[in-house]
Parts: sequence; structure tokens; C-alpha cells
Amino acid sequence: MRRPVPLWLMRQAGRYLPEYRALRARAGSFLDLCYDPALAVEASLQPLGRFPLDGAILFSDILVVPQALGVKLWFEEGEGPRLEAVRKGDALPVFDDKRQGRQLAPVYEAMERVVSAVPAGVTVLGFAGAPWTLATYMVEGGRSRAFSEVKGWVGRDPEGFARLIGTLENAVAAHLVAQLDAGADAVQIFDSWAGALPAGALGRWCIAPIRRIVAGVKAAHPQAPVIAYVRGVGQRCESVAEEAGADAVSVDSTVPPTWAAEQLQTRCTVQGNLDPAALVTGGEVLRQAASGILEALGHGPFVFNLGEGVLPRTPPAHVAELCDLVHGWPGGAER
Amino acid sequence: MRRPVPLWLMRQAGRYLPEYRALRARAGSFLDLCYDPALAVEASLQPLGRFPLDGAILFSDILVVPQALGVKLWFEEGEGPRLEAVRKGDALPVFDDKRQGRQLAPVYEAMERVVSAVPAGVTVLGFAGAPWTLATYMVEGGRSRAFSEVKGWVGRDPEGFARLIGTLENAVAAHLVAQLDAGADAVQIFDSWAGALPAGALGRWCIAPIRRIVAGVKAAHPQAPVIAYVRGVGQRCESVAEEAGADAVSVDSTVPPTWAAEQLQTRCTVQGNLDPAALVTGGEVLRQAASGILEALGHGPFVFNLGEGVLPRTPPAHVAELCDLVHGWPGGAER
Repeated sequence: MRRPVPLWLMRQAGRYLPEYRALRARAGSFLDLCYDPALAVEASLQPLGRFPLDGAILFSDILVVPQALGVKLWFEEGEGPRLEAVRKGDALPVFDDKRQGRQLAPVYEAMERVVSAVPAGVTVLGFAGAPWTLATYMVEGGRSRAFSEVKGWVGRDPEGFARLIGTLENAVAAHLVAQLDAGADAVQIFDSWAGALPAGALGRWCIAPIRRIVAGVKAAHPQAPVIAYVRGVGQRCESVAEEAGADAVSVDSTVPPTWAAEQLQTRCTVQGNLDPAALVTGGEVLRQAASGILEALGHGPFVFNLGEGVLPRTPPAHVAELCDLVHGWPGGAER
Repeated sequence: MRRPVPLWLMRQAGRYLPEYRALRARAGSFLDLCYDPALAVEASLQPLGRFPLDGAILFSDILVVPQALGVKLWFEEGEGPRLEAVRKGDALPVFDDKRQGRQLAPVYEAMERVVSAVPAGVTVLGFAGAPWTLATYMVEGGRSRAFSEVKGWVGRDPEGFARLIGTLENAVAAHLVAQLDAGADAVQIFDSWAGALPAGALGRWCIAPIRRIVAGVKAAHPQAPVIAYVRGVGQRCESVAEEAGADAVSVDSTVPPTWAAEQLQTRCTVQGNLDPAALVTGGEVLRQAASGILEALGHGPFVFNLGEGVLPRTPPAHVAELCDLVHGWPGGAER
């Protein structure tokens, strides 16, 4: 039987939706939104109320994991996240499963409620940041352009840094398992800053930690699909497919879909990779870009998504059109 | 005869040098530094005064080309460049060879003076931004993260945008030729934001314009080496080597040196690609990273460089050590 290509969008719940902006204004801070189950559920479900998406991702943030490890976190309006920096030589955060479970209980409660609220047939996704990406925020104290603090630590004290990464592996695996325990159908690991790693460091600090997390998740939930999103590494995302054991690789917009069809889709499901700017532009640009991706990848195991998160200035009508395009595409695989 | 591997560093004249910071304070604005030949020469030569580098790149900025096209440009301290945005539907800037020659005369004068001042054996490099990268600054009005203005224009009005790119091709080619006329030995084209282009757009907006510029430069200076730096495109920099006609491809730090040796060095000279963070860290990290690159690429046509510009917090002593490492490496190719 031919089934339509499924789709969801990274950051599908977010600022491009007027109802999200209203909710956000009501919630107070961004973190209040993450930790209040009723609000987090509302945010998670908002895009489903408008669009026939096939996936619902829990509204949350990757930095709840460092926060559960005791790292101070706050958001400055228009500035992105700030963290009390963890530096080489500092006492490392310690992972405590029970403490994390208590602190993130509202997240898991939100997950349970999303699971029971979504329409039949919608896949509910949990997620977490990958250890490298979380470590960049923790060591730099926020977003970075040069990543020189964290790379300095990696260089001068790789064993110490490996302990931080190991702690994050445990915390991330536990967080993903808890989301699956709460009813999520699948999880996605975001290594958004993998592209900051020089070529020789990708294996140790990105691929190997993800492999260990995938193994940890699979030990508890053998059937749960794990998606790995490793941004900014181009065709080296091949090593994610080969070595990390993920069921699906989510590729960014710089990865040629035809290449992904030949090199990745033979090994795993591919997810991606519409340029979010095409969704802002809409019209013929959106139709052509989406068709190109569908033609290249739609005949095999594939989940339509963006190459990065939805941009705040995206017109919601364009998302509706994209759903029509993807679901209406006639070439869907036999599956 | 075995010759040592040559090296220079992108942004080797810059804020990590105390003498540069002093010069910058004396100069007033950053643009004053670019347009005062005496000051630009002093900045260009500062790193040569400290380190036995094999290349000297003219101190200037890629945005002098849009400025010579009549686009208003200013720098806000700590904020990067700002430009009066050129948007779809606006009258496009017009390239006028004579006007550009007059406006950029101080740049060419600085180049002449650098050429006559450098020690024998030092290669003098001119440079320019590639059309796509310049267009992102011109359309967004400065640096961007999402590039949605420029991509919106590309999507809605590709023919109009192609006219802007065509104007930039002419302006960039003329600027590079004028630097070679002034005595530069080689030129580098910087497409720093190529990684913002989705896969399917790389050919039209990055590779093809560079190919036409290389052809224009070669028409005037057939022997002058042209280096293309196309950042953020991973292994798709292969198409720069294959299609753009550049003599050398400068690769960023995410490109595996062993891959570059196999896939690029068979076709052209490779330049790169030490992670600038390793130069900040120094010590064993720097030695290992530099050796790995030398072992992979030093046996063929190769210019040692960074994968991106020198970071402001780089200790100058580490640059001195890098020069020793590269020049002292025993495996240099017969050439």
C-alpha cells in the first residue's frame, strides 16, 4: 500500500504562531512555559490544531538537562540562554537519576498529557540535546561563535572533558528514556553545534556519545526509534548512520537530497531537509524545493522535515501549504 | 629539492596582536584603517615583523567592494558591519570600473607599498569577498543568522538577484585584477557564507559566480594563482575544485585532511585547515593538530593555513610556534 510521506517540523511550536506568542506572553518567562505542564502541553499541541502534521514534539528546551544537573540557567530577552559557566578545574556536575527525575517531572507529566491528547496516528516525539552541544552551552555560558573555551578544555584536559561528556551521556539517556516511559513514540537527539568540531574530533565528541546514548535508550526501549540530528557536518553525517546506531538521520539543508538517498537511505531512515527560508518565502519556491526533496527521498524510508527549525517570520499559511504538498505527493513509497 | 610547507594565516593581521590594537586605536575607525594606505600597510606588515610567514595578505575588508558600488557602510563597535540594505525592487547598484578604481585607489596604493616592502620570498595576497557572501551583507544590511531576506529575494526574483550577483562578479573581478596590477602575487576569494545556501543553490550562487570571476582574473593575469575559500559546505568543496577553476581550494576545519588529500589535492593545491581554537590552546594540542594536517596534506601541493581567521584571544607566541612546526616539518614534498 502506498502511504503518504509523513512530516513534522523542528520548532513547529514557536514564535511564528500568533497563539504561541500569546501563550508566551501569558506564561511569563520561557522557562515557566517549559516547566508548567498545562502550558507546555498547550504549546506542543498548537501546531496540531492548525496543521495535519504527523508528529508532535514536546515543547521543552535542551537546556533543562544541564539545569537538572544543577547548572544555573536563565534567559535574557533577545539574547538567548545564559548559564553559569562550568570551566576546566571546576567541580563537575554530578548526575543523579532521582534528582533529575524529580526536577524534570513536569516535563514528563507534559509528555503524558500530550500523548493522551494527540489525534490517532500522530507520532509523539521527545528530545534532548547531545552531550557536545550541551557542553558548549555549559562551558561557554551560553551561545558561542568561536567555541574557544570549550575547545580549550577539550585540548588541555580531554580526560576531564570526557568525564563531563560521560555525565551528560547518562543524563541525556535518562531524560530520553523517561520521555519514552511517559509515552513518547520516538526521540530525537540534537547535536546542533557538531559543525563547530574540527574534522578529527567529530568521532570522539559527537558520534561516540550519541552511540552510547542510543544504546542506553535501546536497552530500555528496544523498539523506540531514535533520530539523530547532527548539524553542520555535511556529508560526514554518513558516520552518524554508520556508527551511531540511530534509526534515522536528520540532515540539514546543506546536504544534497540525492546524495542522502544514495548514501544514507540505504542504511537508515532519512529526515529533512527543506531550507526554512523556503518556508518563509512560500509560493513556487516552496513548491519546487519541497518537490525536489520528495522526488529524491520520498521513494524510500523518509520523514519530511526542515533542515533547521521554523523561522519566527514564517507565515503559518505556508506551513499549511507544505502539509498539502507533502501529503498530496503522489510518489509515496510502498511501505 | 625538498621545500618546507609554506604558511600564512587568515586574519593574521588583527586584534590578537597588541601592535594592531594600538594601530587601530590610533586610526580612529576601522574603515580609516582600510583607506589610509600608510596605516593599511603597517597593519599588513605587522605579522611579518614577528613571524616568518610565507604570505602577507593586504589589510582590508571585503565590504569595500559594496561600498565602491555606492552602498552606505559603517561599523558599529562590537556589532560588526552595517550596510544600507539593498532589497528586491530597489534600484540595483551599478558597477563603474573607473569610479571603483578611484574609490579603491588607496587600497591599490597600499598593495603597491606592501609589495615593495615585504621580504624576498614572501607571497603577497590580495582578496575579495565572493558575490554570494557580499550579497548577504548587502541584502540583510549586515551579518545574519537566518539569511531570510536574501533567500526570499533569491526565491521570488532569481533573475533580479542574478543581476545583483552579476554586478558583484564584475566588481569583484575588477578589484582582484587591480590588486594583481598593483603587484599582488596571488588572490583569494572568500565565500564565507556559502554554508547558508541549501544544497541545490550552491552551484548557481556560489560556484558559478566564482568560476566567472576566476575566468575574468585569468584573462588579465593568466599566471596569477587564485585561491577559493568556500566555508561551511563540507565535502561539497569538491565542486569548487572541479568546476570553479581555482588553483587552490582553502578548506575549513570541518573538512577531513585525509579526504582533502585524496579528493582535492589530486586536482589542485589545498590550503588549510587548522582549527583556530587549537592555535588559542597551543601546546600539545597545537602540535598534534598541526602534525595531523601536515602528515595528511604536506606531501602534495599544500599551503598551511587555518580553517577560519585567527581568533582575537590567540597568544602571539602560539603563532610563532606554529611557524616553527610547519617550517620544521621534515616531510615536505619534492617540488
